[in-house]
Amino acid sequence: MFQSFTTTSDPSTGQARLEAVRARMAAMDIDAFLVPHADAHQNEYLPPHAERLAWLTGFTGSAGLAVILREAAHIFVDGRYTLQVRNQTDTDHFTPQSLTETPPHEWLGNNLEAGTRIGIDPWLHTIAEVRQLEAACGRADATLVRCPINPVDTAWQDAPPPPVTPIRIHPPERAGRSARAKLRDLARTVRDKGASATVLTDPSTICWAFNIRGSDIVHTPLTMAWAIIPARGRPQLFVDPRKHEGNVTAYLEDHADLAAPDAFEAALADLGRNAKKPVMLDTICANAAIAGTIEAAGGITVAGTDPALIPRAIKNRTERKGAIDAQRRDGAAMVTFLAWLDAQDPATLDEIAIVTRLEAIRAETGDRLGMPMREISFDTICGTGPNGAIVHYRVDEKSNRKVTPGDLILIDSGAQYDDGTTDITRVVPTGTPTDTHRRHFTLVLKGMIAISLARFPEGTRGVDLDVLARRALWAEGLDYGHGTGHGVGSYLGVHEGPHTISRRGMTVLKAGMIVSNEPGYYAEGSHGIRIENLVMVEPARVPKGGDVAVHGFTTLTLCPIDRRLIAPKLLERSERRWLNLYHARVRRELSPLIEDRAVLDWLEQATAPVR
Amino acid sequence: MFQSFTTTSDPSTGQARLEAVRARMAAMDIDAFLVPHADAHQNEYLPPHAERLAWLTGFTGSAGLAVILREAAHIFVDGRYTLQVRNQTDTDHFTPQSLTETPPHEWLGNNLEAGTRIGIDPWLHTIAEVRQLEAACGRADATLVRCPINPVDTAWQDAPPPPVTPIRIHPPERAGRSARAKLRDLARTVRDKGASATVLTDPSTICWAFNIRGSDIVHTPLTMAWAIIPARGRPQLFVDPRKHEGNVTAYLEDHADLAAPDAFEAALADLGRNAKKPVMLDTICANAAIAGTIEAAGGITVAGTDPALIPRAIKNRTERKGAIDAQRRDGAAMVTFLAWLDAQDPATLDEIAIVTRLEAIRAETGDRLGMPMREISFDTICGTGPNGAIVHYRVDEKSNRKVTPGDLILIDSGAQYDDGTTDITRVVPTGTPTDTHRRHFTLVLKGMIAISLARFPEGTRGVDLDVLARRALWAEGLDYGHGTGHGVGSYLGVHEGPHTISRRGMTVLKAGMIVSNEPGYYAEGSHGIRIENLVMVEPARVPKGGDVAVHGFTTLTLCPIDRRLIAPKLLERSERRWLNLYHARVRRELSPLIEDRAVLDWLEQATAPVR
Repeated sequence: MFQSFTTTSDPSTGQARLEAVRARMAAMDIDAFLVPHADAHQNEYLPPHAERLAWLTGFTGSAGLAVILREAAHIFVDGRYTLQVRNQTDTDHFTPQSLTETPPHEWLGNNLEAGTRIGIDPWLHTIAEVRQLEAACGRADATLVRCPINPVDTAWQDAPPPPVTPIRIHPPERAGRSARAKLRDLARTVRDKGASATVLTDPSTICWAFNIRGSDIVHTPLTMAWAIIPARGRPQLFVDPRKHEGNVTAYLEDHADLAAPDAFEAALADLGRNAKKPVMLDTICANAAIAGTIEAAGGITVAGTDPALIPRAIKNRTERKGAIDAQRRDGAAMVTFLAWLDAQDPATLDEIAIVTRLEAIRAETGDRLGMPMREISFDTICGTGPNGAIVHYRVDEKSNRKVTPGDLILIDSGAQYDDGTTDITRVVPTGTPTDTHRRHFTLVLKGMIAISLARFPEGTRGVDLDVLARRALWAEGLDYGHGTGHGVGSYLGVHEGPHTISRRGMTVLKAGMIVSNEPGYYAEGSHGIRIENLVMVEPARVPKGGDVAVHGFTTLTLCPIDRRLIAPKLLERSERRWLNLYHARVRRELSPLIEDRAVLDWLEQATAPVR
Repeated sequence: MFQSFTTTSDPSTGQARLEAVRARMAAMDIDAFLVPHADAHQNEYLPPHAERLAWLTGFTGSAGLAVILREAAHIFVDGRYTLQVRNQTDTDHFTPQSLTETPPHEWLGNNLEAGTRIGIDPWLHTIAEVRQLEAACGRADATLVRCPINPVDTAWQDAPPPPVTPIRIHPPERAGRSARAKLRDLARTVRDKGASATVLTDPSTICWAFNIRGSDIVHTPLTMAWAIIPARGRPQLFVDPRKHEGNVTAYLEDHADLAAPDAFEAALADLGRNAKKPVMLDTICANAAIAGTIEAAGGITVAGTDPALIPRAIKNRTERKGAIDAQRRDGAAMVTFLAWLDAQDPATLDEIAIVTRLEAIRAETGDRLGMPMREISFDTICGTGPNGAIVHYRVDEKSNRKVTPGDLILIDSGAQYDDGTTDITRVVPTGTPTDTHRRHFTLVLKGMIAISLARFPEGTRGVDLDVLARRALWAEGLDYGHGTGHGVGSYLGVHEGPHTISRRGMTVLKAGMIVSNEPGYYAEGSHGIRIENLVMVEPARVPKGGDVAVHGFTTLTLCPIDRRLIAPKLLERSERRWLNLYHARVRRELSPLIEDRAVLDWLEQATAPVR
């Protein structure tokens, strides 16, 4: 699934806001200021007080950056958002630019006069980004100014406060490994790297390491926090004291020295002053203010990787079982929903009705099966007909579309449960699908099956497998403009790094990693197709005569793939065999979770063999 | 095909040489000295005077590095050479180390005492390598000393002189584009990058840019030279004046200011003193002495890429036609050879006899068809039975093996012609192949066909396709330990970057690039299989209903793939179809080039359809 946006701000107030920011910039003697879509933790979903870009420009996409100059302003977005930015942003005052073709650091290097003073809020840019900006300033003979106060924050007088939600302990029977053991492992990594400490900046890492969860961010059960993990001694955890009390406070104190977030900067300076060895920072995750504070106090920082990334990605036995259970129950919800959908007269449906019904069924099914849905894991995508072809489409009151019989309906959804995070995409026809629908669907399915059937030796990365999902489409001159798969957390982010199956997937796939398998095809103006299962990397049996240990993917997601959309003659025998075995397993594993006779009947026919 | 080695030096003299080098090190006040397998141009095949590592250690592998300490010495080699280094090098004096598991810069950082002075010859290490070494010295508190004189050169008193062979003009009807136009393009790239000049250090680049060839290096028609390409104005070419006279001198003078190689360093210093903008250097190709000389004179260097890499890799129309013609004639030679081989009693054959016969037939066929073979493009590989499983095997008098009926024979060979460079691998059975032979061969063939049939959109890199060649093997728990394909030059290097089909293939595949397609499988102690065709990237027809432009590979190599080794039931219909169409084309295109009736008969049966 893909990142969401919602329309929240009012373009009409744009100019006043821009002028207020410019007034602050003048007072600070800077000629340019950068406003990225980012918070201090580089979260994927921002808390409301960090929606500075949306407040200033109206643009609510998941990636973007504005460059405010004294006389002009530019907004950089990628290809997904070229239309949206023109709808949301006042282009009289903001000139759209391409984030990918002319990245801001290059654009600044080429377009600014010598002597320009470019301001940034160092809390909102990663160390790696600031290095690029500094190099660009070097070329342009400009100066990069780290602003102690963000002029947008000064201008944005009614900004909401940072989120304060209660912290919950994620219990050992869900986490599978104690926080103490995880923190000990992280400290060992810090020692092995010859560092004195590392700073954890990603809330997902901190929640994983301390076995805690929160509700500071929509869809992802995170609490905003900072942590310092020294090579030896007690970790420090910086978290708002209003977020915990009682046994949670005792639990946290058991694992770390606690302090409020406003003590974090002083602690970094202490670290810089006192550390005998370098402090390890993840340059593509930690922000430049953290590095700057340590270095200003006399410390040395060294580039490393968030030491929790790989251990978090490799699910332990408990998390694996949780993931299997969560997908099975989620599959029961999906089957109930799909049976309902098939029973409706399509002409009576619209996208909001479909989304609403699916979310209600997920909640009901979770309650019925004794594991309530905590929340949906992202805004449910329901794209009917041509809306299905808009990869980043999310329905709202304005875009809501009535189903036209004959439409394909693409539904991409998921949920957060205590034992796991789900993410599934299915496409269903209304009326009789056309030959083109069936051809496109089957080509996508062939890619999905190719990943499902893949065997690969130790050391294989996602980039090495991505083509398997595309080969059948490429052979027909078709493709899709997104990766084939992303990592998924264990009751954490539905997008969790570092591994992917994509052009950029340079992380080795290890047993226990969960990843989505979701090729697609999008026929602009007509229909969209995506078929998504979550799969887990597992050792595979070495075939007779083989001399190399191989891994494969075990499919976690259990839900029928619509047989009406399959053109069997396009499937190889091995592909048909995979499909029929999968459907038999879906039926066998889901039937015991379903009580409704009509749903069971639907499941029976939906999983009948394809010949 | 793979890089060659030959045994040339005598281990018994090792200790005396080591002591002579240590005496020089002591006089230079350095505690350690690095001796890499490299020359100042980072050539793949070294000229004899640059074989310092072989002279000092006896080790003649294609990659390696010795670290000479006052009391000890270590030799770093990769997994291919762990056996060979123990055979060739006196391990009483040199401790073998792993080049990949403990790279020298890491090993130095971990094993040397603070204060150690580590000497290097900056002409023999790339800029990137020296950066790594400097970082390691920083960690170990050691000092990296750039030695103005290489202590090995002082100790090696009877070193051969650098090669001096005549330069030949590679005429426009072969090169397809004038040197003037190529040099103008390179200067434009330098300007576009905002640089004042670039330094060309790769003889292959210089030969390509100036449309010249030489014979300074075995198997690759290179002349050793340096060149400076300014953003504006005349290039400078540094080449031994004994290598040219008459019209060649006039030709070179027409394109550049000529000077001897010993004027190169002064020219770099001039560049450093006078350049108004940075000098662009390829950090993984240019050596550190070049950067150091420019910077010592006050110049600034900037990291870039050899601007000829991509234009050299994308063959123009003339080069493409040359490649097609060269492979066709080379195919006629291969067919003549394979027909001869099949007619022999295998028990009478040995590897040297096979290699000798193949090279003789290539020479004869070239002469007969009016385009003489200039030289073989690498030492012919002939591995019979278990020798076929040694990927880097080259036969010599000692290893020469008699064929045992039932052996598979792997033959990997190629030639340099004025119009193109060839590289082909075929495997032939003697006697009746076993089911295992046929199964392994067919699995490799499936990979080779998968690459041949691949279609892929703009922007696809070699890394994105590599798995297609491995999928069938991986599914059976089998693999091969080398890349699937390497770039090939146009009467230049048989290994030519930057593109590959491999885990490391990050270069986008563009129409006009030539690459090998050579999956394999090696059953240790039993047999080796590799099937290699050269293919060229070309735009493919967009299939009906397709909406993305796609490329594919056109196969250049024309030679039957042994039908006796194919298990037809393991082939999909599409694979069988490719094979039969390929064989029909081989027969159609090669028959007109063959006069011998027996060879024509052999070709007829060798290309009969597989059902």
